[in-house]
Amino acid sequence: MADTETTTESVPEPAPDEATNSPAPSRRSLLGWGGAGLALGAAVAGGAVALARDGDDEAVPAGEAGAAVTFHGRHQAGIATAVQDRLHFAAFDVKTADRAEFVQLLKDWTKAAARMTAGHEVGEGAYGSLAEAPPDDTGEALGLKPSRLTLTIGFGPSLFEKFGLEDRRPEALVDLPKFPGDNLDKARSGGDLCIQACADDPQVAVHAIRNLARIGFGKVAIRWSQLGFGKTSSTTPDAQTPRNMMGFKDGTRNIAGTDAPRLTRHVWVDETDTDANSAWMTGGSYLVARRIRMNIETWDRTSLQEQEDVFGRDKGEGAPVGKAKERDEPFLKAMKPDAHVRLAHPDSNGGATILRRGYSFTDGTDGLGRLDAGLFFLAYQRDVRKGFIPVQRSLSEQNDALNEYIQHVGSAVFAIPPGVRDKGDWWGRALFAKSPEEA
Amino acid sequence: MADTETTTESVPEPAPDEATNSPAPSRRSLLGWGGAGLALGAAVAGGAVALARDGDDEAVPAGEAGAAVTFHGRHQAGIATAVQDRLHFAAFDVKTADRAEFVQLLKDWTKAAARMTAGHEVGEGAYGSLAEAPPDDTGEALGLKPSRLTLTIGFGPSLFEKFGLEDRRPEALVDLPKFPGDNLDKARSGGDLCIQACADDPQVAVHAIRNLARIGFGKVAIRWSQLGFGKTSSTTPDAQTPRNMMGFKDGTRNIAGTDAPRLTRHVWVDETDTDANSAWMTGGSYLVARRIRMNIETWDRTSLQEQEDVFGRDKGEGAPVGKAKERDEPFLKAMKPDAHVRLAHPDSNGGATILRRGYSFTDGTDGLGRLDAGLFFLAYQRDVRKGFIPVQRSLSEQNDALNEYIQHVGSAVFAIPPGVRDKGDWWGRALFAKSPEEA
Repeated sequence: MADTETTTESVPEPAPDEATNSPAPSRRSLLGWGGAGLALGAAVAGGAVALARDGDDEAVPAGEAGAAVTFHGRHQAGIATAVQDRLHFAAFDVKTADRAEFVQLLKDWTKAAARMTAGHEVGEGAYGSLAEAPPDDTGEALGLKPSRLTLTIGFGPSLFEKFGLEDRRPEALVDLPKFPGDNLDKARSGGDLCIQACADDPQVAVHAIRNLARIGFGKVAIRWSQLGFGKTSSTTPDAQTPRNMMGFKDGTRNIAGTDAPRLTRHVWVDETDTDANSAWMTGGSYLVARRIRMNIETWDRTSLQEQEDVFGRDKGEGAPVGKAKERDEPFLKAMKPDAHVRLAHPDSNGGATILRRGYSFTDGTDGLGRLDAGLFFLAYQRDVRKGFIPVQRSLSEQNDALNEYIQHVGSAVFAIPPGVRDKGDWWGRALFAKSPEEA
Repeated sequence: MADTETTTESVPEPAPDEATNSPAPSRRSLLGWGGAGLALGAAVAGGAVALARDGDDEAVPAGEAGAAVTFHGRHQAGIATAVQDRLHFAAFDVKTADRAEFVQLLKDWTKAAARMTAGHEVGEGAYGSLAEAPPDDTGEALGLKPSRLTLTIGFGPSLFEKFGLEDRRPEALVDLPKFPGDNLDKARSGGDLCIQACADDPQVAVHAIRNLARIGFGKVAIRWSQLGFGKTSSTTPDAQTPRNMMGFKDGTRNIAGTDAPRLTRHVWVDETDTDANSAWMTGGSYLVARRIRMNIETWDRTSLQEQEDVFGRDKGEGAPVGKAKERDEPFLKAMKPDAHVRLAHPDSNGGATILRRGYSFTDGTDGLGRLDAGLFFLAYQRDVRKGFIPVQRSLSEQNDALNEYIQHVGSAVFAIPPGVRDKGDWWGRALFAKSPEEA
């Protein structure tokens, strides 16, 4: 693969005034089909239409489902971005101990991610210039739109040990404690790093993870992965709150992707959070991922009253107990003491607030014919110790009524580095670059 | 549950002149939210907008993604219907030996299927009149559009034995032979019956299977299930052919849902195919389901030339070897003798033609970090002995070049009864009704 200098020339970048909400061209129309000798230049000439300048602290419109989300910016896309319809999440183990080889992979990944999120193929595409070589791109996303694909990388605690970077590990990246009720499967937990792919078309998200895994062959291997088929949270203000697999709206009061003050307060790491060793995280965030299995069959045999008591909301409108509308301010004392909304509310947790971005999953059926379904919970926060941990401690130790119907079966935590600022930058550069000049 | 007479009154049915391509109302707008006392009558008053009169041998337009597909008709919907974006397929084992109990389940299922495909909730909904009772509907599809949901039932060979109906088993419903290279997992094969749920929104398809499984609790249990995230075949003439996980277009010459002569010739069972015992199948079809695992990682390291030789098409356009356009007539002799298109072509198999309706799947990764992905192949045909069997025999015995990269790991075959003709009819009535008058 080429070095970053070449990257600068080969990744198409929209002019600022193109960053509007225009319909996106399809991958096919960008590329055309001139024959086997198709040059990369043709793809570059097509350009890319960007939807939302996600990296900046500006409003992020929900936009058209087929459009492209800008890859470069102060923050990574896929956090404050209006939640896309589908998810493919992969946790990787790093197989190489060679720092230079790993750095090259991060550069190659960055280049591929910039291309795919813009709606282009990886490298010279699925239909490259050499018939004798495997194509650079696996091809199943040809002809599909960019579909608001975002690719978000995260670094797990074990990565810092692997490359002798223990002193650069931020204090906020704690190992999660064991919570009461946890029943974690090691094969669905942890990981040296993660990539979250979100898109409005699942084939686009799956294609992205597959091609990144392929680029990483021999250097990283997928440890576990998760497909999500339905978003359970919205970061778009006033949008309809999606329903989870229990049929309820949850996360009504989620942080909106357009709410810069709340994002600054609860999601983005800033200079006041870091020291010299962790300064590389400025502009980043922390991600907690939990696979939460729902005991669907038990839940489905529970009365409506019990279901509503458990959540502290009515099922139809989603209004908090005693209120008329979903977005009415909850009156916590009207709820049962163990109601989910009451125990999860910031007022019950010293103000702890997280940005939720979870997806419903259904992975077929288990050996007993029960649906293996639930919530793949994804939460972004400025400090795990002030976000997920106090909330989950409250839910688990105070016996959230929901605990009878759910079980946490997978868990991971990742440091999400800041965005890739420009074409010369790459995922994790501030952490892995050897000298300040290089960074 | 109520008997079929009540069904007649409670299932809303569009007037014929409403069967147009109008935007569909959302489930929420159909129902409204008046409070806990919501009566079924309110849902009925809302009515349903039907998209395509699928059951008839008329043209079936692709239509608007959110609309409803008519449930009643001569044939079941979900076969000639323009292929929807997502699949949830479930095979069930029957747990009851009581024919009357099973017949009641078929009636209850039919009623629920008619309601869900029209965009309504099951029974009295997720927000029924009794807070003390579990809601009739699990609720996660509330507020979602009908999303062109179709529900298609099939009966497996073992069902006939279970209810002493061996003499009613059609000759065309053969047990599939073992093909060379088959590596079938029993836990992913067979089943007394199946339900195929297709929709443009996966949450709508998953909701439908979950609610049918719930209605069947104690009488049937899910044996295996499969989610499909991307269609791999189109039944819409001139639509872009979707790409499979190998990045290729396959099934270009699929039978169009609008091509009545080919449907009549290759898909629908008619009077000439049946005798007195199998007359109940007139208007039906036969379904073969195969889970085909792709060795994605091996394929991705194969040269473009080899990939194109394997399929007998070029990767970009999808044109047959030596031709310019995807839909050009293939010249089989120009292809390698073991090319997939050549061996699967009707001219190589005595004219055998099937209607393909398969979906790509990705079920995470296997224990070796490889993507557990491939094609969930679904093929409809008038007679399995003249459809899937000769084609698959040709592919497996003549060493289809694709066999190096794929493996069949699951298999099932089902008789698909004709459509539910009207509100008094139910799935499988002609097979299970005890007397001709009852049928």
